[in-house]
Amino acid sequence: MAEQNLALVKSALSRQRIETPSWAYGNSGTRFKVFAQAGVPRTVHEKLDDAARVHQHTGVAPLVALHIPWDRTEDYAALAEYAGERGLRLGAINANVFQEDEYKLGSVTNPDPAVRRKALDHLMECADIMDATGSRDLKLWFSDGLNYPGQDDLRARQERLAEALWSVYERLGPDQRLVLEYKLFEPAFYATDVPDWGTSYAHCLKLGPKARVCVDTGHHAPGTNIEFIVAFLLGEQKLGAFDFNSRFYADDDLMVGAADPFQLFRILYEVRAGGGLPGTPESAESDPGIAFMLDQCHNIEPKIPAIIRSVMNVQEATAKALLVDREALRDAQQSGDVLGANAVLMDAYNTDVRPLLGEVREELGADRDPMAAYAASGWAEAIVRDRVGGRQAGWGA
Amino acid sequence: MAEQNLALVKSALSRQRIETPSWAYGNSGTRFKVFAQAGVPRTVHEKLDDAARVHQHTGVAPLVALHIPWDRTEDYAALAEYAGERGLRLGAINANVFQEDEYKLGSVTNPDPAVRRKALDHLMECADIMDATGSRDLKLWFSDGLNYPGQDDLRARQERLAEALWSVYERLGPDQRLVLEYKLFEPAFYATDVPDWGTSYAHCLKLGPKARVCVDTGHHAPGTNIEFIVAFLLGEQKLGAFDFNSRFYADDDLMVGAADPFQLFRILYEVRAGGGLPGTPESAESDPGIAFMLDQCHNIEPKIPAIIRSVMNVQEATAKALLVDREALRDAQQSGDVLGANAVLMDAYNTDVRPLLGEVREELGADRDPMAAYAASGWAEAIVRDRVGGRQAGWGA
Amino acid sequence: MAEQNLALVKSALSRQRIETPSWAYGNSGTRFKVFAQAGVPRTVHEKLDDAARVHQHTGVAPLVALHIPWDRTEDYAALAEYAGERGLRLGAINANVFQEDEYKLGSVTNPDPAVRRKALDHLMECADIMDATGSRDLKLWFSDGLNYPGQDDLRARQERLAEALWSVYERLGPDQRLVLEYKLFEPAFYATDVPDWGTSYAHCLKLGPKARVCVDTGHHAPGTNIEFIVAFLLGEQKLGAFDFNSRFYADDDLMVGAADPFQLFRILYEVRAGGGLPGTPESAESDPGIAFMLDQCHNIEPKIPAIIRSVMNVQEATAKALLVDREALRDAQQSGDVLGANAVLMDAYNTDVRPLLGEVREELGADRDPMAAYAASGWAEAIVRDRVGGRQAGWGA
Amino acid sequence: MAEQNLALVKSALSRQRIETPSWAYGNSGTRFKVFAQAGVPRTVHEKLDDAARVHQHTGVAPLVALHIPWDRTEDYAALAEYAGERGLRLGAINANVFQEDEYKLGSVTNPDPAVRRKALDHLMECADIMDATGSRDLKLWFSDGLNYPGQDDLRARQERLAEALWSVYERLGPDQRLVLEYKLFEPAFYATDVPDWGTSYAHCLKLGPKARVCVDTGHHAPGTNIEFIVAFLLGEQKLGAFDFNSRFYADDDLMVGAADPFQLFRILYEVRAGGGLPGTPESAESDPGIAFMLDQCHNIEPKIPAIIRSVMNVQEATAKALLVDREALRDAQQSGDVLGANAVLMDAYNTDVRPLLGEVREELGADRDPMAAYAASGWAEAIVRDRVGGRQAGWGA
Repeated sequence: MAEQNLALVKSALSRQRIETPSWAYGNSGTRFKVFAQAGVPRTVHEKLDDAARVHQHTGVAPLVALHIPWDRTEDYAALAEYAGERGLRLGAINANVFQEDEYKLGSVTNPDPAVRRKALDHLMECADIMDATGSRDLKLWFSDGLNYPGQDDLRARQERLAEALWSVYERLGPDQRLVLEYKLFEPAFYATDVPDWGTSYAHCLKLGPKARVCVDTGHHAPGTNIEFIVAFLLGEQKLGAFDFNSRFYADDDLMVGAADPFQLFRILYEVRAGGGLPGTPESAESDPGIAFMLDQCHNIEPKIPAIIRSVMNVQEATAKALLVDREALRDAQQSGDVLGANAVLMDAYNTDVRPLLGEVREELGADRDPMAAYAASGWAEAIVRDRVGGRQAGWGA
Repeated sequence: MAEQNLALVKSALSRQRIETPSWAYGNSGTRFKVFAQAGVPRTVHEKLDDAARVHQHTGVAPLVALHIPWDRTEDYAALAEYAGERGLRLGAINANVFQEDEYKLGSVTNPDPAVRRKALDHLMECADIMDATGSRDLKLWFSDGLNYPGQDDLRARQERLAEALWSVYERLGPDQRLVLEYKLFEPAFYATDVPDWGTSYAHCLKLGPKARVCVDTGHHAPGTNIEFIVAFLLGEQKLGAFDFNSRFYADDDLMVGAADPFQLFRILYEVRAGGGLPGTPESAESDPGIAFMLDQCHNIEPKIPAIIRSVMNVQEATAKALLVDREALRDAQQSGDVLGANAVLMDAYNTDVRPLLGEVREELGADRDPMAAYAASGWAEAIVRDRVGGRQAGWGA
Repeated sequence: MAEQNLALVKSALSRQRIETPSWAYGNSGTRFKVFAQAGVPRTVHEKLDDAARVHQHTGVAPLVALHIPWDRTEDYAALAEYAGERGLRLGAINANVFQEDEYKLGSVTNPDPAVRRKALDHLMECADIMDATGSRDLKLWFSDGLNYPGQDDLRARQERLAEALWSVYERLGPDQRLVLEYKLFEPAFYATDVPDWGTSYAHCLKLGPKARVCVDTGHHAPGTNIEFIVAFLLGEQKLGAFDFNSRFYADDDLMVGAADPFQLFRILYEVRAGGGLPGTPESAESDPGIAFMLDQCHNIEPKIPAIIRSVMNVQEATAKALLVDREALRDAQQSGDVLGANAVLMDAYNTDVRPLLGEVREELGADRDPMAAYAASGWAEAIVRDRVGGRQAGWGA
Repeated sequence: MAEQNLALVKSALSRQRIETPSWAYGNSGTRFKVFAQAGVPRTVHEKLDDAARVHQHTGVAPLVALHIPWDRTEDYAALAEYAGERGLRLGAINANVFQEDEYKLGSVTNPDPAVRRKALDHLMECADIMDATGSRDLKLWFSDGLNYPGQDDLRARQERLAEALWSVYERLGPDQRLVLEYKLFEPAFYATDVPDWGTSYAHCLKLGPKARVCVDTGHHAPGTNIEFIVAFLLGEQKLGAFDFNSRFYADDDLMVGAADPFQLFRILYEVRAGGGLPGTPESAESDPGIAFMLDQCHNIEPKIPAIIRSVMNVQEATAKALLVDREALRDAQQSGDVLGANAVLMDAYNTDVRPLLGEVREELGADRDPMAAYAASGWAEAIVRDRVGGRQAGWGA
């Protein structure tokens, strides 16, 4: 690869920012069991302390997404300051309208207007928090749906959803956005009110330019071509964010890239091709505005190194995507050379990009080998020693 | 059920029209083998003769969809007249841009502009045929897609697709429509250019009111909630047509209702609830404009009785959908009575509607038991005896 | 249907016994939220009180499966007596080796021998309990598996599993059985140690005649033909039990028959054809020994009526299966009449069997309409009023 | 990596033999269209000519599987000689009992005994051919199954299957084997008579040691963990052969490794771990007897280079599997280090093994870069020029 191109690749890798979710630092599990881990944060501040380690070792993870009410605090400006002192910034605000008893049959789509009102109030509170934290994105995921056919009116629920989204949209400031996540199923087991990208896209289109789709890589039916969705949404200026994770079956929420690293590469290639990576020729000067968030559950593995590994996995896929020889690819595609075009893509995928990323990290002042550096840092031992008593943070707390 | 309601149900059932596809009367199969059947039509006229038997016995299947070039003929006006003499009308025109060698890498999305031009010419020819036959709908299904990652540019193909669709759309007369079918996979095995309802919807939205989505019930990823899509599209006035069939695995193209009769019922309930059934309170006076087409492959079973059975299966699901007590359902839904609401739906589903449909058929002048009537008619024996020599019609011929 | 046949059908329906699981009377939910319901039992005795109502109204649900340690009690003989006083019998003992911190990386397949020992001790305790309760079946489901490739040695885990199963098998009395459940995924998200019927079958075959496979209808990959598995296992004398429930996506644990009533019918038809229903000509005089258990999670619907409905759904599917005209079916099959054979099956499925079941219930001294009878009984109101204080039973408690 | 280990890895790679299927050199397609390609072989001899090029460039593909009747010839001994003169050997004999009209409702499981007899005769003919060619394996794949519930008796078909298999098994010579392939669906769309590994395993177990399971990597339900099956079967000495290909959706028959290279690696890691790779410490001195066959359909890409690429993809996955540090892996697994164990596996997967394979090929006297060597050889142009007239070989011919 020419010297000049390599410089471009490294520059783009240096500019990529990966957002980690506060909840991934806490305990999580399945309906069968949540296994507690020693050293897990007990407060949002301790979550930020852990996030700071991830950023320190990787150099590309300064943003931390919050989840309300799990990260509710008295003074969000102070929290933002606390983050800033650790080299971090507060990222997306994630609303939670699925963990109170009233939401058993839905939140913004509930047949009961009082419940809808309560849910909307929470969304508005989240918008207020965004004002305080300076967050750009309000991330909306609704667990709303049905377990049984006939349980509620599918179309009426769409109308209730549209109404709530519109109220939120109107509330947003000029630099704030709403990103609407979709999910095939779980916790609803018959129908979900935003089951697929088409539904999210249709709502975002009606709302306007500040509404965008969030693609959680674990929320699709088996066989879904996720990179197609990414390419389509990017072309329509409607891709807002990723929730990265990986899955073999359903919404397994494993470390991103763990189940299908080739798929992750293909997704990031489409992000690059569609101009979604800042600092590449494809994105030109414009800011594509794609948030690269992780959304994972580290049920059995230690949280912090799992998040570091996930950040690295996104970087490796991105590096390979950047190494694709676009000119050679276009030539092969234009001439109908099926094997040749596929080979161009695979050449990049088969490259071992770990040395290259080691260099990028060093230039960023981070660690060539973040996993080893974290292991050597003593942090894991320190938190086990120090974080005694109190109530561990966890999914739902 | 009150006398008055029953009359409404019967009236709606009498007004339903089910369109049968000309190709289902011919041979079809899998890539492994096409099994030939004695008596299969050799010409489009013989296909219409068979379709006339289906209509005669069921009373609700006067429309026949054509496939070009499989049903190409010199004089479409004469063909329409031939149909009319048998109590039939020519229905949707189905374009075919997947069976010529040039289309190996796509038709309207092919990287080669010459191939795209050829494909577009065919679509325009189909529009011409619609003028001659008086058909309302041009049904577009594209086999276009990729078998390997990198094979072509996903986004560029969307732009080529949009361009072709726009050319066709502009060509349509004021009473003509374009219905765009989507399909998850097959024959393309990595990416399909219109893989899901979201893609079809997005294109139709840009085109305008004469463009609508066609839902083929066998074209989804496992687990997809089809009735949700139906409800959503109906609410947006973007549902144009069904291609009915059923599947256990992929696009199996079995007789509709054979694999999951409960799903078919749920779909038809949403059609009813969304005002898609003419002659119901829900559809008011407006014509919902939904085409109820079959699209099946009768690989091992005899064609004509399989089509009669399929028509009956759609009717049975429709009858059950009409029997749902909407008021009781709404009450249960509004009060959050999960089991009660589900029970209202299931009560209708568990009803044996065959006697009711027997009455409807008698009132239409058709046969109470269409399968028995066909078996007794001697037609099956006659076509085996008479249709000797010539080339059997089949998928691709 | 001939009088004589109808008598046979009713007799078989009267003899069917459906086992309800103690845990279905308690709260359950998803990883996102467990919604508490008023009136939920606080003790195993209260669970039995509720089960007694289900049996009273349906007449066919005298057996109650226990889950250890959730239903651990001081004196199992006394518990059995308590059950007996309410017309109930204690059914299968379900072991639980997934809810203690040691089991994070597995129970009987854990790489740590100390954990394996602990898990085996629990299984032995369950066998002891069986002696006390008189239960026939020890139901084994292992959550054991891996979340990440490489996490452990797939083959070594099979050997550890075989060793544990052998120890348990040797412990069983002459009238006791081990039934081994399989599950595709969850809570393990990469590999499960007993993922499919083939694995369970292979282990049971090596163990011997007292080991049988348990088919949970929600534990398969999408598209799996469950009735094929049932037919195969019955033919090999290796079908031991069902865990009935239903699903649209994964292990949704919905009320059996709610998602796909036609599938439930096909399963029960194979049970009948394979001689699995006592009192039918197919089962002759031999006791087929198939346990018809429910295993469901009533997350949003009230527990007791949901269980009553589930019992009724199994009965309706069984009734339809018994109505299949076996002789006509065999004739059509033998003559290669695809549509005819399918029609014989569908005729039975399309029959409304609710009146027939009403009669069967009356003859059993139960209620013609169990849902209405339960609603009228005042029990729902009574338990809400009386069960105040204490700790509600739930998944995991 | 230590010098000594590297030598072991290279030695194992040199000893691996990959078998190519004669039919992959001919045309294939989908039910929608078979696209013809210039230069495609017209005879079995021309297929062997092409196979010889694949072997020449890769050095590891001397075996060619035949398909009867597609490759039927007068004198199989002469054919074997023809192969030998080109450095090839004839491999597995693949029976075909799915392309004659009699097989519409099944072959060895057909309700009609005359059809079963015809099918069995063909299997016996294949065994005769094995005697003549010196082939070890008779590969049996049955398209037998049902499209509609009720169409035939599931259990009776198993008995007919067992009977046919037994007849074939008894006919086999002491060094001949039967390998039984399973497939979830297609061309049967409701039930398949050998749908999964469990069914194949159960039959093979009853037959005896000369019967083994064939794992076609495209024949599973979505989400199936194929490497688990491989590990299980290897542990039971019941893995006989692979049919390698890849898929995004169903039985797409794409080039192996094209859809999910990580899965291919995991499969080959289990092959290695289970002793399936000759020349490794894990396989010791015994011959594991696993046939590594390709079974693909090159619908849109040129056949020969697609097969070369597939051979290379198997080699790359094998090389990575051999690079896994088994000792480090075991240590991490034993200590419950989830991230560490996964990292050991991923380190090998992330290695760029192409240079290593270049060396191996050179040492074998083949080409460092087989794709480039083939392109430069002029063969592609020569066959287009020379193979004019005659009837192209293809799926079904």
